[in-house]
Amino acid sequence: MKAEIITIGDELLIGQVVDTNSAFIGQELNKIGVSVYQITSIQDDKQHILEALSEAEKRVDIVIITGGLGPTKDDITKQTFCEYFNDELVENKEILAHIERLFKTTLKKPLLESNILQAKVPSKAEILHNTYGTAPGMYMKKRQKVFASLPGVPFEMKALLKDKVIPRIISEFRTPFIKHKTIITEGLGESTVAERLVHFENELPKHIKLAYLPNLNVLRLRLSGTSFNERELNIDLETLSNQLISLLEDIVIGFDDDTPELLVTNLLLEKKQTISLAESCTGGLIASTITKIPGVSAIFKGSMVTYQTPTKSYVLGVDENIIKEHSVVSTQVAKDMALKVQSNFKSDYSIATTGNAGPSKGDSDAEVGTVFIAVASPNGVVVSEFNFGNNRYKVMHKAKNKALEMLRKEILAYNK
Amino acid sequence: MKAEIITIGDELLIGQVVDTNSAFIGQELNKIGVSVYQITSIQDDKQHILEALSEAEKRVDIVIITGGLGPTKDDITKQTFCEYFNDELVENKEILAHIERLFKTTLKKPLLESNILQAKVPSKAEILHNTYGTAPGMYMKKRQKVFASLPGVPFEMKALLKDKVIPRIISEFRTPFIKHKTIITEGLGESTVAERLVHFENELPKHIKLAYLPNLNVLRLRLSGTSFNERELNIDLETLSNQLISLLEDIVIGFDDDTPELLVTNLLLEKKQTISLAESCTGGLIASTITKIPGVSAIFKGSMVTYQTPTKSYVLGVDENIIKEHSVVSTQVAKDMALKVQSNFKSDYSIATTGNAGPSKGDSDAEVGTVFIAVASPNGVVVSEFNFGNNRYKVMHKAKNKALEMLRKEILAYNK
Repeated sequence: MKAEIITIGDELLIGQVVDTNSAFIGQELNKIGVSVYQITSIQDDKQHILEALSEAEKRVDIVIITGGLGPTKDDITKQTFCEYFNDELVENKEILAHIERLFKTTLKKPLLESNILQAKVPSKAEILHNTYGTAPGMYMKKRQKVFASLPGVPFEMKALLKDKVIPRIISEFRTPFIKHKTIITEGLGESTVAERLVHFENELPKHIKLAYLPNLNVLRLRLSGTSFNERELNIDLETLSNQLISLLEDIVIGFDDDTPELLVTNLLLEKKQTISLAESCTGGLIASTITKIPGVSAIFKGSMVTYQTPTKSYVLGVDENIIKEHSVVSTQVAKDMALKVQSNFKSDYSIATTGNAGPSKGDSDAEVGTVFIAVASPNGVVVSEFNFGNNRYKVMHKAKNKALEMLRKEILAYNK
Repeated sequence: MKAEIITIGDELLIGQVVDTNSAFIGQELNKIGVSVYQITSIQDDKQHILEALSEAEKRVDIVIITGGLGPTKDDITKQTFCEYFNDELVENKEILAHIERLFKTTLKKPLLESNILQAKVPSKAEILHNTYGTAPGMYMKKRQKVFASLPGVPFEMKALLKDKVIPRIISEFRTPFIKHKTIITEGLGESTVAERLVHFENELPKHIKLAYLPNLNVLRLRLSGTSFNERELNIDLETLSNQLISLLEDIVIGFDDDTPELLVTNLLLEKKQTISLAESCTGGLIASTITKIPGVSAIFKGSMVTYQTPTKSYVLGVDENIIKEHSVVSTQVAKDMALKVQSNFKSDYSIATTGNAGPSKGDSDAEVGTVFIAVASPNGVVVSEFNFGNNRYKVMHKAKNKALEMLRKEILAYNK
């Protein structure tokens, strides 16, 4: 069973907005054994939408369309849908009532003519009620093919896809099972790992593929299998992933949707221990990465982002003489930052970062890319020096990943 | 002049990786007057790549391909390129020397067989030398059409596109000018703004389009024009954007690539004033957003992320009785957090956030989505209460945007 995602909107093609919807849709379809064959992003242009629909219809069984359903003039998906399916727009009383209610109670704004027009829908479409917004989704069948049109607003699209579209697809098609097993490693590059896996890859059965996904010092290895026999597929993936784990034992840090931050927070939740941060060159990135995860207030005490050099002394309490003697980007300062924040926040562990993320040199002579990371535990402090290159974004994110991995090792060592 | 972007990689279609390359390529092509007609994402599959190349060749003049050039088995773009152009792979001595040097000096790892294979390139392609990685780019012409194949690693792709591909396209084609003017507003919803602009939109000339781009409380209005006459296009856009600004005077906050964080940091740099933050429910997000911008250490002193309730007292210095009396999510606590952090960091301004980002209730009885934002200036403190809905990501990001907008107003008021 194959699907195509069509995302509509000039903002995607001129690069003003990154298309994050497609990745979400791809994940959800994959879970139910539907393989996304292609993602096509096109302009808000009638002729182009018609062509894309017609080409997708030839290629796949399921077409998911997002975008172009808003109340403004540049949103033309609904009219084009009518033209494609030889249909016409009719006013839907339930949707109108929902829109009126939404404006009265939640939005507390006057209802406008353009919003009332949003209650007009193609007469042949099954309407997918949108709880969170004014634009309803639409579900259409044409011979054996299925078309779903959803709003482009990620929050609304996600709810409609999960609650309305996925259940309809499941009941409509018999799909093979597609399963993935991802092994996450840290410490070796893509080609070194590939060299180690030459034999493993050559022996892979036809229905299982291996992919390498490197990203900022973390390398994900994904095994993907397709089969109509779920039980056999599970066994195959289990066997092969165990082989893979034993080949990569020294560098495996986690599995599947694990991230460095999830691994660390779950470990702390399990051990009932706490963490605080003193961030200089990472500027709050580690704190904000950890607090994306709900429920971390049990283990995350807080962070001191001491961005200007003097604040490291008068806010965090680092000895000024250490900074004078060793410079602000040094082993000694990283170490003292970690100890001071651990004591200020009364936490079991702490991380400190000090370095130069670039593009120009800061308050020290350190090369761009130099980062010192210290991790304090009840056992003491470890400090390491790194150079993460000359791209600001990459320096900060690699430092974040490395700091979390260092912390994970210290937690495991302390609790052994 | 029209282009198509083809991004290759199973990880895009199963949704493991979001395609950010296309947005960057779209922006760069737009700047030189090339309109991106379509973005197509496909699997690492030879037949599918061949079809996508052939279809794109029919539709557009320029085809930019990213991905599938790595050293591992799942990367098959280069071989497929050869098949499409009826070409063969030959070893390139310069690339081999570059790869050998890279492994010896920068990567400090042994050179592997798979890396040596990366020096093999299609014999007819013009080679685009990749300073930052082992996979070179390729540039091919077929009749009047141009094909460029670039690595999928964003950092490497960006450098090759800007330094090697764009200059070649400029010298190859005569392109019309495409220009944009974006006006950024805050405070009114998309449909209310559209209602106000009905007459303006009806009077727009054919070669200028208006698009609405809403995102987390900020609404961007983008005017886009196409013409072979650059001077006239500039005048038209200038005239129309001035009309638009006067129609939206009360809600305009910035232009073009401005962001709430850029507006605030530029204003502080200009006024030579400083800021600090006390973040609870935003968990370091405001600090990390500000420190993404290089050169902010002149105005950004730092942040205290006091995530656990007790740390607001023993780290930041908020009076425990205020928390007891009013609860941790309250006007009074937000106000005291702002004053304490302003004084701790000795900054001119400060922002404080306290609230409940969800999904479940935290240390207070406040509804999910409730956020208090306080901004302290040399004039005193202002505090406002908001409800940003029940999605954790949106609550945090809307609070960030709103806090920066409140701060901008206070800076303007104080310096009037």
